[in-house]
Amino acid sequence: MSDLDQLKDALLAGKYRALGRAISLVERDDPEADRLLAAVYPSTGRARIIGITGSPGAGKSTLVAALAKHYRKADRRVGIVAVDPTSPFTGGAILGDRVRMGELYTDRGVFIRSMATRGFLGGVAKATNDVVDLLDAAGFDVILVETVGVGQDEVEIVRTVQTNIVVLVPGMGDDIQAIKAGIMEIGDAFAVNKADRPGADKTVTEVMTMMSLVEEHGDWIPPVVKTIAAQDRGIEELDAAIVQHFDYLSSSGELDRRNRERVRIRVETHLKEMFLQRVLGGAVAKADYEQLLEDVLRKRNNPHDAAESVLARVKFPVSS
Amino acid sequence: MSDLDQLKDALLAGKYRALGRAISLVERDDPEADRLLAAVYPSTGRARIIGITGSPGAGKSTLVAALAKHYRKADRRVGIVAVDPTSPFTGGAILGDRVRMGELYTDRGVFIRSMATRGFLGGVAKATNDVVDLLDAAGFDVILVETVGVGQDEVEIVRTVQTNIVVLVPGMGDDIQAIKAGIMEIGDAFAVNKADRPGADKTVTEVMTMMSLVEEHGDWIPPVVKTIAAQDRGIEELDAAIVQHFDYLSSSGELDRRNRERVRIRVETHLKEMFLQRVLGGAVAKADYEQLLEDVLRKRNNPHDAAESVLARVKFPVSS
Repeated sequence: MSDLDQLKDALLAGKYRALGRAISLVERDDPEADRLLAAVYPSTGRARIIGITGSPGAGKSTLVAALAKHYRKADRRVGIVAVDPTSPFTGGAILGDRVRMGELYTDRGVFIRSMATRGFLGGVAKATNDVVDLLDAAGFDVILVETVGVGQDEVEIVRTVQTNIVVLVPGMGDDIQAIKAGIMEIGDAFAVNKADRPGADKTVTEVMTMMSLVEEHGDWIPPVVKTIAAQDRGIEELDAAIVQHFDYLSSSGELDRRNRERVRIRVETHLKEMFLQRVLGGAVAKADYEQLLEDVLRKRNNPHDAAESVLARVKFPVSS
Repeated sequence: MSDLDQLKDALLAGKYRALGRAISLVERDDPEADRLLAAVYPSTGRARIIGITGSPGAGKSTLVAALAKHYRKADRRVGIVAVDPTSPFTGGAILGDRVRMGELYTDRGVFIRSMATRGFLGGVAKATNDVVDLLDAAGFDVILVETVGVGQDEVEIVRTVQTNIVVLVPGMGDDIQAIKAGIMEIGDAFAVNKADRPGADKTVTEVMTMMSLVEEHGDWIPPVVKTIAAQDRGIEELDAAIVQHFDYLSSSGELDRRNRERVRIRVETHLKEMFLQRVLGGAVAKADYEQLLEDVLRKRNNPHDAAESVLARVKFPVSS
């Protein structure tokens, strides 16, 4: 039995060490990672994948922790993937928060992984998707993906979750309102967190008004739930909204559409990265390629035509 | 003379309508855009490209406006590209800020363009680079690129500017400190803005301490400048830091290295996108491709192997 087969079996059996090793392969963009992901792919598709998106300071991590505890009470295994560099889960953060997350770290039914937002060779979105697949294959029932939601990569991550919760907080001022404007359309449900602060009801009303202006949700009107994540309040209501959204996804055919979109993004990401690897890995001689870049740098050529000239050396089939 | 030649000539002559039309082509990812960009590329490389990065609320836009006014006094033409969805320049923002920006909007030596952070077919980073090239070719002396700095796409934008200024603000609490931790290493200079607030000196000291721990800046130690952008204070000092950094870039060979990296990123972005266009545009029959995606969706195949099977139909040259 090869090492990879052993790793695969251990992963599918839900072993934590195997999962950790597999994620490390993904993070290093190791060629083994792709083989492993291909091997476990048929075992994916069972997990509920939930995005938690919002500005720094909205309490996303606390909400993620509260949801995780909620799911643990029902004995569901929970994976947490934090893509937000400001998240307590990423480690670069505040001691108080880390203490609050403490009980999750010692719970064997919870697996927490933070993704840095730079330095991934294949991109953060691809790496995040891959880690979600690994958790899914390892038998995690719920996967919570925490992101800031700003930036194209983040938007791509949000497009690949099943239900995205946008976390807002009352009275954070105009700047935050402006962020909200940027992420409103990606919410399948809204949590107005820290709802014991003044202005919570006003924020709820504002969101509902905004939602009435957004038409791209189809038949689904995103519910707005008040939460106080630090006190585990409103979490059951939020979970009810998530369940309701999943029922909508399933019954409307939207789940299939989202899954199809997810597949399309992933295949095309692979296509682009694999193509580039082939080109840089020898299909064009390194010296030729460096000369090509030099010519662009010296304005003897331009980026588009340089790429065209590489592409001209590749033979495409003519489809019938 | 073709339409494209006319557009090119008008653009190189610095005509605003031509610039607007050209940017629209880029935003629509129109094939004409690539031809135009290729044609004007030899005329690029003269502008100073400066990134302004920081959290929402740090006063980035106000600082951009203050810098723009500073450069206008020296009669330099200024292009502003706002990639931040929360920026007043993007229009989705606060009336007060827009009023403050008013004088820039009526100044013929200033061109302001906001880039949405989603919906760009070829990616925000590519579109931003393209717009910067167009402004450069149109004779703008200074191009200010405003970003939040979080997310991979944004980091890619930051990697392609010459000097990146990270804007901080005193006493914004732990959450903002955490963001800072995420963006510290991308600062070539720091502006502690709203420096009349309590704690400004403490923030300056903190940044300097952090900088002493970061070693990837080479021989350059990023200066920290106190500014009050809303009162145009500290702007000359900030510009002095920018000039100093550019001198360092030029004399150390770092400028060449950054330009080379910029060229590499752009050629590879083109390569990947053009390859995908070729594949989706007929190199693989549409029905075949949809069937491929369907197989992945139904777990009969996986994303990696599906991409591999497309790639297998493409013939790569064997380099000698």
